[in-house]
Amino acid sequence: MKNKEVDIIGKEEALTVTITSEMVNDFAKLSGDLNPIHIDEEYAKQTIFGKRISHGMLVASLISNVIANKLPGPGTIYMSQDLSFRKPVFINDEVTAVVTVLEKKKEKPIYKLKTVCVNQNNEIVIDGESYVRYKK
Amino acid sequence: MKNKEVDIIGKEEALTVTITSEMVNDFAKLSGDLNPIHIDEEYAKQTIFGKRISHGMLVASLISNVIANKLPGPGTIYMSQDLSFRKPVFINDEVTAVVTVLEKKKEKPIYKLKTVCVNQNNEIVIDGESYVRYKK
Repeated sequence: MKNKEVDIIGKEEALTVTITSEMVNDFAKLSGDLNPIHIDEEYAKQTIFGKRISHGMLVASLISNVIANKLPGPGTIYMSQDLSFRKPVFINDEVTAVVTVLEKKKEKPIYKLKTVCVNQNNEIVIDGESYVRYKK
Repeated sequence: MKNKEVDIIGKEEALTVTITSEMVNDFAKLSGDLNPIHIDEEYAKQTIFGKRISHGMLVASLISNVIANKLPGPGTIYMSQDLSFRKPVFINDEVTAVVTVLEKKKEKPIYKLKTVCVNQNNEIVIDGESYVRYKK
């Protein structure tokens, strides 16, 4: 009998979400990360970014969404996540989180995933990798 | 004139937060990560965890809180974050996020941070490292 687990290697799933002002405000309350660059337009104008940016971890949560809901999907256990915040995500940016299954560990139901978020201009805003445990 | 930036090396700041059911539900809505292990008690009972667990990224957001609010503090730019999800965080667990400044890059206002989250039993639930840009 073939190992059912290997059949997700190379698969890719994605999700596109517009990061709204409300989402950033909600995440600020939830995390307690009240850095004014996220929630204060006047402050943000005077920074190198010129306007409010999203929390990196809010954008990264879209990766968690794709992993949990789509690939590998329900039942997945999140083991690790590396995140490089390459570019700022501004309010109303449309972010697409893309998860690709790179490989499976030998003898273990553990998968290495490529996890990337791009904006509406196809610029990478977050990249990284993740390990997850997944059994059918 | 001495470089003011080096004076945070070795410093440590922490924040303790109880991860409530409401926080987990709010994070589920915000991220769209509706994995039933986070939001469905009956489902969670039948998993290896035995009860609902928090999203890893919600717990990780406490690290972002400490970095933004305390160390290095306001004005910090988050460049990268590695996260290893070592143990589950259950509803009503009390999590302490601890950030320690490990070192500064030569000639650049970039700091390497140790970022750890522990539960009320002093077990590490998340560990990892982060790079941030910070200027006074």
